[in-house]
Amino acid sequence: MCAEVKSLNEECGVFGVWGDPHANVLTHLGLHTLQHRGQEGAGIVGLTDHGLHRHYGFGLVSEVFADPESVRALAGTAALGHVRYATAGGRILENIQPLLFRFSHESIALAHNGNLTNALSLRDHLEQSGAIFQSTSDTEVLMHLIRRSKADSFKGQMIEALNQVHGGFAFEILTEHALYAAVDPNGFRPLVVGKLPSGGFVICSETAALNAVGAEFVQDVQPGQLIVIDDAGLHAEQYTTDTQLAVCSMEYIYFARPDSEIHGVSVHEARVKMGERLAKEQPADADIVVGVPNSSLSAALGYARASGIPYEMGLIKSQYIARTFIQPTQALRERSVRMKLSPVKAVVAGKRIVLVDDSIVRGTTAIQLVQLLKDAGAKEVHLRIASPPLRFPCFYGIDIQTTRELMAANHSICEMRDLLGADSLAFLSVDGLEKSVGLQTDAPNGGLCVAYFTGVYPTKLDDYEKTLHQELSKLQINIAEVSA
Amino acid sequence: MCAEVKSLNEECGVFGVWGDPHANVLTHLGLHTLQHRGQEGAGIVGLTDHGLHRHYGFGLVSEVFADPESVRALAGTAALGHVRYATAGGRILENIQPLLFRFSHESIALAHNGNLTNALSLRDHLEQSGAIFQSTSDTEVLMHLIRRSKADSFKGQMIEALNQVHGGFAFEILTEHALYAAVDPNGFRPLVVGKLPSGGFVICSETAALNAVGAEFVQDVQPGQLIVIDDAGLHAEQYTTDTQLAVCSMEYIYFARPDSEIHGVSVHEARVKMGERLAKEQPADADIVVGVPNSSLSAALGYARASGIPYEMGLIKSQYIARTFIQPTQALRERSVRMKLSPVKAVVAGKRIVLVDDSIVRGTTAIQLVQLLKDAGAKEVHLRIASPPLRFPCFYGIDIQTTRELMAANHSICEMRDLLGADSLAFLSVDGLEKSVGLQTDAPNGGLCVAYFTGVYPTKLDDYEKTLHQELSKLQINIAEVSA
Amino acid sequence: MCAEVKSLNEECGVFGVWGDPHANVLTHLGLHTLQHRGQEGAGIVGLTDHGLHRHYGFGLVSEVFADPESVRALAGTAALGHVRYATAGGRILENIQPLLFRFSHESIALAHNGNLTNALSLRDHLEQSGAIFQSTSDTEVLMHLIRRSKADSFKGQMIEALNQVHGGFAFEILTEHALYAAVDPNGFRPLVVGKLPSGGFVICSETAALNAVGAEFVQDVQPGQLIVIDDAGLHAEQYTTDTQLAVCSMEYIYFARPDSEIHGVSVHEARVKMGERLAKEQPADADIVVGVPNSSLSAALGYARASGIPYEMGLIKSQYIARTFIQPTQALRERSVRMKLSPVKAVVAGKRIVLVDDSIVRGTTAIQLVQLLKDAGAKEVHLRIASPPLRFPCFYGIDIQTTRELMAANHSICEMRDLLGADSLAFLSVDGLEKSVGLQTDAPNGGLCVAYFTGVYPTKLDDYEKTLHQELSKLQINIAEVSA
Amino acid sequence: MCAEVKSLNEECGVFGVWGDPHANVLTHLGLHTLQHRGQEGAGIVGLTDHGLHRHYGFGLVSEVFADPESVRALAGTAALGHVRYATAGGRILENIQPLLFRFSHESIALAHNGNLTNALSLRDHLEQSGAIFQSTSDTEVLMHLIRRSKADSFKGQMIEALNQVHGGFAFEILTEHALYAAVDPNGFRPLVVGKLPSGGFVICSETAALNAVGAEFVQDVQPGQLIVIDDAGLHAEQYTTDTQLAVCSMEYIYFARPDSEIHGVSVHEARVKMGERLAKEQPADADIVVGVPNSSLSAALGYARASGIPYEMGLIKSQYIARTFIQPTQALRERSVRMKLSPVKAVVAGKRIVLVDDSIVRGTTAIQLVQLLKDAGAKEVHLRIASPPLRFPCFYGIDIQTTRELMAANHSICEMRDLLGADSLAFLSVDGLEKSVGLQTDAPNGGLCVAYFTGVYPTKLDDYEKTLHQELSKLQINIAEVSA
Repeated sequence: MCAEVKSLNEECGVFGVWGDPHANVLTHLGLHTLQHRGQEGAGIVGLTDHGLHRHYGFGLVSEVFADPESVRALAGTAALGHVRYATAGGRILENIQPLLFRFSHESIALAHNGNLTNALSLRDHLEQSGAIFQSTSDTEVLMHLIRRSKADSFKGQMIEALNQVHGGFAFEILTEHALYAAVDPNGFRPLVVGKLPSGGFVICSETAALNAVGAEFVQDVQPGQLIVIDDAGLHAEQYTTDTQLAVCSMEYIYFARPDSEIHGVSVHEARVKMGERLAKEQPADADIVVGVPNSSLSAALGYARASGIPYEMGLIKSQYIARTFIQPTQALRERSVRMKLSPVKAVVAGKRIVLVDDSIVRGTTAIQLVQLLKDAGAKEVHLRIASPPLRFPCFYGIDIQTTRELMAANHSICEMRDLLGADSLAFLSVDGLEKSVGLQTDAPNGGLCVAYFTGVYPTKLDDYEKTLHQELSKLQINIAEVSA
Repeated sequence: MCAEVKSLNEECGVFGVWGDPHANVLTHLGLHTLQHRGQEGAGIVGLTDHGLHRHYGFGLVSEVFADPESVRALAGTAALGHVRYATAGGRILENIQPLLFRFSHESIALAHNGNLTNALSLRDHLEQSGAIFQSTSDTEVLMHLIRRSKADSFKGQMIEALNQVHGGFAFEILTEHALYAAVDPNGFRPLVVGKLPSGGFVICSETAALNAVGAEFVQDVQPGQLIVIDDAGLHAEQYTTDTQLAVCSMEYIYFARPDSEIHGVSVHEARVKMGERLAKEQPADADIVVGVPNSSLSAALGYARASGIPYEMGLIKSQYIARTFIQPTQALRERSVRMKLSPVKAVVAGKRIVLVDDSIVRGTTAIQLVQLLKDAGAKEVHLRIASPPLRFPCFYGIDIQTTRELMAANHSICEMRDLLGADSLAFLSVDGLEKSVGLQTDAPNGGLCVAYFTGVYPTKLDDYEKTLHQELSKLQINIAEVSA
Repeated sequence: MCAEVKSLNEECGVFGVWGDPHANVLTHLGLHTLQHRGQEGAGIVGLTDHGLHRHYGFGLVSEVFADPESVRALAGTAALGHVRYATAGGRILENIQPLLFRFSHESIALAHNGNLTNALSLRDHLEQSGAIFQSTSDTEVLMHLIRRSKADSFKGQMIEALNQVHGGFAFEILTEHALYAAVDPNGFRPLVVGKLPSGGFVICSETAALNAVGAEFVQDVQPGQLIVIDDAGLHAEQYTTDTQLAVCSMEYIYFARPDSEIHGVSVHEARVKMGERLAKEQPADADIVVGVPNSSLSAALGYARASGIPYEMGLIKSQYIARTFIQPTQALRERSVRMKLSPVKAVVAGKRIVLVDDSIVRGTTAIQLVQLLKDAGAKEVHLRIASPPLRFPCFYGIDIQTTRELMAANHSICEMRDLLGADSLAFLSVDGLEKSVGLQTDAPNGGLCVAYFTGVYPTKLDDYEKTLHQELSKLQINIAEVSA
Repeated sequence: MCAEVKSLNEECGVFGVWGDPHANVLTHLGLHTLQHRGQEGAGIVGLTDHGLHRHYGFGLVSEVFADPESVRALAGTAALGHVRYATAGGRILENIQPLLFRFSHESIALAHNGNLTNALSLRDHLEQSGAIFQSTSDTEVLMHLIRRSKADSFKGQMIEALNQVHGGFAFEILTEHALYAAVDPNGFRPLVVGKLPSGGFVICSETAALNAVGAEFVQDVQPGQLIVIDDAGLHAEQYTTDTQLAVCSMEYIYFARPDSEIHGVSVHEARVKMGERLAKEQPADADIVVGVPNSSLSAALGYARASGIPYEMGLIKSQYIARTFIQPTQALRERSVRMKLSPVKAVVAGKRIVLVDDSIVRGTTAIQLVQLLKDAGAKEVHLRIASPPLRFPCFYGIDIQTTRELMAANHSICEMRDLLGADSLAFLSVDGLEKSVGLQTDAPNGGLCVAYFTGVYPTKLDDYEKTLHQELSKLQINIAEVSA
């Protein structure tokens, strides 16, 4: 859905509960709160009196679980849910998670957010030794590794498997005996633990989902950490100590809800600071500051504060976004985009506007926003982006695996300004971004992954090394500009 | 949907097109833009090569028209659409509009926003002379009056019929020959005319819908005015000259989109001014100003500006509101309400907050908002309402026909403050409201209907006179307070 | 559904209950039993604690009432149901019955099987005096006539209205006070009364539906009779005594279930006798007798018995008929027809077959059946039709209002035989048909309507006189043959 | 659906096409023809330009493929379809076939009809070596065995795998390169090959489905045979020569369509002969012979012929069977059963009836049929069953794995007669059954599996040996009777 306004897509949100009599209902609420992390499909596995049961399908949580009976049928004391936006793999039902594996003596559910950089080679290797696959996602690989491990406990098997997969990942596994969670050694993808009033635990992608279900924050799952929650309580250990924090900076910039906190930093506050720093780095002579609703409002507020230019509501976002409008003419197609974002003429007419957006991917939305403000009478539109130019692919879970469609990978900033029709265009610096987030860490880049801005990746890229080289070879000119 | 957050419901939105080859598609887009005016059901009648055809059903526009074929089947050069939220009459399919009447030699579609005060007595009278009804809405009455008129043209019949109905109404009628529109003599309900690039015309509830389809604003339909659009163009005349402007003030306060303009006044700007006046009338000693998203953000911005207290995003509204959550426990029910609005802890913790809301109906949402901010660490919550206390029923189209559930009709402001758990509570004055909107008119109350605040109604109430007396008799104490 | 195999379609089935605590459930069961009478749509109105409520829609009973809650919501002590196959009027929801009219002080449900010959002129007259219509069916007319009657009781109003409508009809009306039923003065369309073990009553189209719900047969509703059932029991009277029995002979030939009895005659037995008489009138030299399943099996059995030729199952009808197969090629289109009826090769190979069918409308099915049997190895196919040639339109409720598509109206029997590819072709005589049914009556044509065979209609045709003349003028040659 | 009338359920029907441009459409038609073999779910995998794609779901073929686009999206030159009725394994989507496995370099679809007797031990063994499973059906095992084979061709791998599985099975496998089919060494489950006019091939469960798509019969897939169809044509070989024909006799008695032929024997003719032999073995003094529609009509015809007692249509089967009727009272529950089968009173009243049914499982339907005929006035009801008493479980694919619910396993024939309320009760002998089918073979039991009648199984039972012993220990008395 937001996919139509912004073409960057997070892969997934996960939400697991152990030890609460309303685990199914809490998971359903939790997935609604995480809906922004994926709208292609949703699923919940509940630990019922008759073992693990699953309900899943394509669409929003409210569509997949339109029949209240579908939630009730999962009643029990533990549950695991997932919302998905596909990166790799097509639109097939088998890719909707949690995956559920049925063995003779038990069932196991698996939910994943992220992307494994060595999934293809692991899969090839597994297939050669007889493994069979039903999905096209990389998630299924982990279960094969677990089941083929010779370790003598399930936890031991998980630890062996986790040390074999590379990339950005946040896994949750539900068995009839425990809820397991693990995060990659760089902590690319967020995962937090909370405690319920009932004494039960929640492990989910964002603290906003903890708040939604009334759970108290306990901890972020740390890089390389494995969490086990069973009836004996919470147990945390490192499956590897070879770790280095590199949180996906796009979580702070765009993906996560503003009411979430990641590694102790409020997403909203980080965005406000990005806006403030942007105002200082890239001032503009203007009458009002307008943010692109809803994800850029925090940064716009920061820009307004630091610049002293009044904050205004110049753009309105419709609450009722229709998913697809296949329209007979180009004019009508543009109309259907404008329905989602519309200008407040009385505010913008005759004004010089600082338009604050969080990022530019393809530029298609920005072009229309600038045009739409000018059509509504804006005198000037100064576009200020509260993050650095997106120029490189991501292999850790964001849906950019080619530079072809990244506007900043193919054009200089001057070209971009002209293409967008803006009176000026400027971006936040990488340093400004890192300082705005301000994680308490000694890790490089302030503990953030900024690879899509710099082309410097915090890990080996395994199966993607070759892809990256191909992408980079097409980008020589721009790389020069980046380095400059 | 908004019904869960705010229990005030507008009846309807209407959208008609004449003379455009994509009339069906434009109407579909237009209804999406007007979705906030009614979510119970939607319908479109298209003037096709085979006459008028209708598609309609329960639910959002995106649900009713989920199959693109349902829009395509209505292709032609004219169309009439409607979104409905029920006031009188139950949830039956026959009440979903536009109504479509099929005569031997023609068909006629009718869409209505408003409420007729003499519908019951007209219906009784019609039934006694053999009229039969299939809906329970008051809309069907108008078609009976038209068909029983002895005038020798359809327009003449409409004029006779329009002079027989009382109350607040905005009608649109589509025949195979023309699109007709009319507004009641007080202009309670808004209706605007726009012109399309194709040369065709649009008549709809709000200017935001004109913008959405690229139509240029032509005029507000004036009180007592009848508009006829046919292949000869636009023709406007007064079906009565006994008129006096009394626009529903709740349109400015809450119902209409901020990017709409009603009788020349920007809804957003009017709300900003309500906030500014509120700040002057009812100052508060606080650290930040927080608006209830989305309808109160404009007023909050105004309050912040006039008071000098910083505007902040202390509350987040979910973009993915599930319609119903029937939850097993009270705690879970409260959770599901909180999912729609959640606090940004980093913003509100430790702060003295001015919470700006547009109105208080039952008070159920306000109670939870105050509690939720305090749970998130707010030190004080000063509730400021950017409209006067709602104390009296409306009979012109808003879903308040009893005072029983109006908090301000049953409690003093001190009692309300205590019930809501706020540290202070104050409302905008009626005079402040009128000045904030600032319509250019000599009509009483600045051209607004403020009957739900004052108990003074701009028209006779016909069938509702008795109802009002009953309501008022229960309210003696509060009336005294109002008068005081 | 059967529409694909046979293009003759009955309009409707009706089923009403008064005075049983499970009226909704019984009506649901009853409609299933009457499903063969109409598959376009279905509806039930239940008399609940909150008055009359309706559930209705397009499709089979099992589809419209797929959600068990839809039946439960109609719980009460009376109900009225309807299954529809459209003749006049298009496929619009407003035509699905029972119609439900909502007046200020009561609601009234109306269900109809048949066709009014003066509906158009009545409708014109009503429209001129201000009546408004929402459906395109002729059923709505009756309610207008009732409501405009000046009689001082509802029954009196019904009697006045029933005397104004002409044609073939079986009406049921449900109010909160009683269940009413009436049949036209010729008894074209069947309607029977039964008594439930609970003491309640059922009025429905066929006795098979009485059996299905465990009701004991009480009486056929007689021509010109009005039945009133209320808490005082059953009351029957004649609304007119100007009556003459002329039961639609196609009910015996094809429409009705074989386990039903109409005016005391078993449908199955009548068909067996048609087959026996056909064998005597039109013998054939053959090895086996094969009936077209399922409607012609009874006649085939009769033919076998009277001829001494063995009865065999040479054709199988699929129990799982898909409704529509839009196929890419002509060959595939023919395949999808053959899926419904398939030959038993071991039975038919090398045999001379008497193929017994109940009637020939367009001949499209018969052509394929003959071909299919020959493809399966049949040596000869002698087609014997257990009814006379269909040559004239019906205006009393069968879906033949033009002679254009009637094979026998456009071809001699010799031509038909050649077109069908049969080795011989013969029909039952009109006299044979009348004697096979053998109603106990002095009425012409043995109490049957045989107008579609003879062109002689038992009533004035009102609005259809002109249509008939037009049809007949095209048919001169064939008429000569008929007369001969 | 038939499950409600008869509780014996076949597992599945399979239908594969190779080498026809309308493979998807033909498979869709074919599955409709095989719908009687399974109504729980359906699926089709099509070999499209983009590889293998699948559409599948719960319900009838007409429901799963309600949207014509779902068939069109599978367009290509090969396809594999499946209809399922579950035996082992619950109602989960993952059990709906064809299963589709997605490997890095290819996809493979697998469809299965039957039951593997060593599935559990194979699965245990596979799981111990790391295999993961997503369904609970035994079908998934085969793909694991294939992929773990070290043979150097896919065919070689299949042959190794087929030699490891035991029981009754008919597999079809579709790859991008060929369509494979194999039948177990006893030929328990039927599978036939046909040739299309296009030159393409069909492999499916019954010849009736070949006829439906216009394919010419080529051969039955023989016990132990593997068929490979690719662009080079048809290739057949034995994967094992250790074979002995033992066709499931219930295919002839009840499951298969009467217009199918299995191993050269017409199912209809076999049933007629069962009826003829039954008449000679178990004569009855009666007025008419009535068969239970539709599966017992052939046997009834045979009984009538051999006995000279007239064949009559005393029972009517509704064409519109609703799937579930959850009724509020026991009386209503019985009604809903009776709706499916109803008596023709005029035929049965006052008559002594031979009621011919194909088999008795639980006896619940038979009890109601006898009662229903007596209620309709039958003087005597002599129940004749055209197969021997069902007393033992089946482990080769029929849904009887316990004797608990088999009436004949728990009661003597005298007891059964009394429980059923029949005036007499008799069964066909095992010898009579074998002679009626009359397969040209030297195999024991005339090439039939009659284990459910005799308790003597044609193969080792592997994982079910213990189950059988437990069942038999409960049945000592009856076994004595069988042996006697």
